[in-house]
Amino acid sequence: MSEASKPIIVLVRPQLGENIGKAARAMLNFGLTEMRIVNPRDGWPNPSAGPAAAGADIVLDQARVFETTAEAVADCEHVYATTVRKRGVTKPVVGPDGAARLMHSQAGRHAILFGREASGLETEDVALARHILTVPINPEFGSLNLAQAVILCAYEWSRIGREETEDGNLVQPTAEDRELPPAPQEELDGLIAHLEGMLAPKGYFFPQDRAEATRRTLRTVLTKPAWNHLEVRTLRGVLSTLQRDRREEH
Amino acid sequence: MSEASKPIIVLVRPQLGENIGKAARAMLNFGLTEMRIVNPRDGWPNPSAGPAAAGADIVLDQARVFETTAEAVADCEHVYATTVRKRGVTKPVVGPDGAARLMHSQAGRHAILFGREASGLETEDVALARHILTVPINPEFGSLNLAQAVILCAYEWSRIGREETEDGNLVQPTAEDRELPPAPQEELDGLIAHLEGMLAPKGYFFPQDRAEATRRTLRTVLTKPAWNHLEVRTLRGVLSTLQRDRREEH
Repeated sequence: MSEASKPIIVLVRPQLGENIGKAARAMLNFGLTEMRIVNPRDGWPNPSAGPAAAGADIVLDQARVFETTAEAVADCEHVYATTVRKRGVTKPVVGPDGAARLMHSQAGRHAILFGREASGLETEDVALARHILTVPINPEFGSLNLAQAVILCAYEWSRIGREETEDGNLVQPTAEDRELPPAPQEELDGLIAHLEGMLAPKGYFFPQDRAEATRRTLRTVLTKPAWNHLEVRTLRGVLSTLQRDRREEH
Repeated sequence: MSEASKPIIVLVRPQLGENIGKAARAMLNFGLTEMRIVNPRDGWPNPSAGPAAAGADIVLDQARVFETTAEAVADCEHVYATTVRKRGVTKPVVGPDGAARLMHSQAGRHAILFGREASGLETEDVALARHILTVPINPEFGSLNLAQAVILCAYEWSRIGREETEDGNLVQPTAEDRELPPAPQEELDGLIAHLEGMLAPKGYFFPQDRAEATRRTLRTVLTKPAWNHLEVRTLRGVLSTLQRDRREEH
């Protein structure tokens, strides 16, 4: 993911220093580092911000403060205004995922505006934006706080970036997973033969005319997991143990 | 979005009532309503939960409390363990988006386990799960709190649900998946207990100090396949057969 695509998080007239800190923490979890603050109610720096950032000090230390929203986004090519309420504006509406796709596909600096905790963005802030960013929440219960709105946008920026560079949903398999492909067929056959050999004398495949179907069922069940070499070995150990007449001495 | 696909949020040994309330609020923002709580440190109900839920009282009122994680997911077919730390387990790893796709495409009840605030899930909780759910965060700064982890999972469940119903991307479950979901956790537990009961007297779990690890390995191998009800029944039949002293008369 290129540094260039990283959106700038703009907190417009935030009230509590604690919420500024929480927003910084939310950002850094997904690699976002550039915060701008417009006219914070309690000034800047704010002693409540640091503890709430839980270690994301780099974000707070580099944060820049502006008098107006227009100044804060003056150098940005793409501005998104987050709002849940319908406003009398006709701008394209995107979700956090749609916004993230734009960030990764369109050159230039992207900035996301977040309004004050109690009242959200003012109409003149929204007017600066090219897009409305709305998190599609439960129409009967919409109660996102500032840091949560920030974290969803940061998460999507990160997710879409990985989707585009890798191939999607799956977190890259761990080295462990990669090293252990399904066991070769002959190992699986060995396991099945071992089990069948134990079952036959006990009458499991009786009556004779259903023996084939029973074998097939058993094979289907045991083929499903795609066990790897170590797993097959574990199961062979299980079977060998069950074959013992009694507990052996160790 | 069908009610059926809604995941159950399971908070395992949570510490603060406030965080339980915040998790409820996070859930309801995206329409999730079923919470289960395993052995909460400060008992239940907890007077700190309500105010933090900010109106999501319906989630708290309906929350059910369990003594153990195993009991909390006994009726669930799909269990996800959220963890950021690498564990010595080889289970498939998904992100919140991958998990959400599974929820919308695979029949049966899905449950997501979240560990306690300070320390996360215990190894035995993780052992119950078929999938590891990891939020891919900044490797240099991972600091998600409980409610944030919950909100990302709830958001993805909601987003993927809309994606699939709105623009026809629906991953159609195969007829097989629809008819035969994985067996509920309690059936799988029954199978594992049956096998362990046979193995113990033969000394399989000897020496004592490695017994826990051996049990975990066996559970991991048997949890992998997501066997359905019929498959589990077949394997129970296999075990019962092996327990016979000799071939029975038919």
